[in-house]
Amino acid sequence: MAFDRLTCPACGATVRNYRNPIPTVDVIIELNGRMVLIERRNPPYGWALPGGFVDYGETLEQAAIREAREETSLEIYDLKLLGCYSDPARDRRIHTITTVFVAQGSGIPHAADDAVNLQLFTTDHLPTNLCFDHGAILQDYLRKAQRVSG
Amino acid sequence: MAFDRLTCPACGATVRNYRNPIPTVDVIIELNGRMVLIERRNPPYGWALPGGFVDYGETLEQAAIREAREETSLEIYDLKLLGCYSDPARDRRIHTITTVFVAQGSGIPHAADDAVNLQLFTTDHLPTNLCFDHGAILQDYLRKAQRVSG
Repeated sequence: MAFDRLTCPACGATVRNYRNPIPTVDVIIELNGRMVLIERRNPPYGWALPGGFVDYGETLEQAAIREAREETSLEIYDLKLLGCYSDPARDRRIHTITTVFVAQGSGIPHAADDAVNLQLFTTDHLPTNLCFDHGAILQDYLRKAQRVSG
Repeated sequence: MAFDRLTCPACGATVRNYRNPIPTVDVIIELNGRMVLIERRNPPYGWALPGGFVDYGETLEQAAIREAREETSLEIYDLKLLGCYSDPARDRRIHTITTVFVAQGSGIPHAADDAVNLQLFTTDHLPTNLCFDHGAILQDYLRKAQRVSG
């Protein structure tokens, strides 16, 4: 079993707390035949899918809609589950489990919050320096899209 | 933001820790044309899919294999993602997010660990007192099975 070691603010003693993997969401936003990627404000730097931590008390879909709005200023709809990615090594900092949706975007894209930049990409010209396992996630997405249209 | 309030074992002060939803897995195990359900040892009592908490450092698939083995003594293979269920009200005790797999079972089923009993059910004779949202999950499973075979 894994534990977090917290420090008591009153006496400085160590307080152990059972550690669970942390749920996150990521979204492949389709907009006018292209896909929205953001450039991260915080380490690890590079291009990534919009996404982030799921708040306690919100559903995965609510988290995806909120993160898309915060980072890209887009509203998203027609969310479809692509898959779940849970390799403990997918984020070097902490064990996260991400649920990835494919969604349609609506609005004028504009980077904000944890996104310092934003760009629309066609599937045949994706950036190579994608963070985390987002490159592998996009490969799964492209394979699935090919199966549907093929 | 939601916080857990822990108690310092040294001085009794309250230590706040950021709270995330807790990842779990559940498995629809198909065995000889029937499906395996367990009767829970702990509250909430009733029939449920085999499953449980994902340990820090293990993948969703590893957690599903481990939980199936612990509760049903079956080995599972050919895991396929059915869906994710994240309604904060799906478990009254705490906000869990479950990832549900459909898998093939192998071996002699035998209840153990958190399962006090085990039974094989045909899809047209499922128990009505299913715990959590497992009734709704099984409805999704049956709908999907009908689409595939229809």
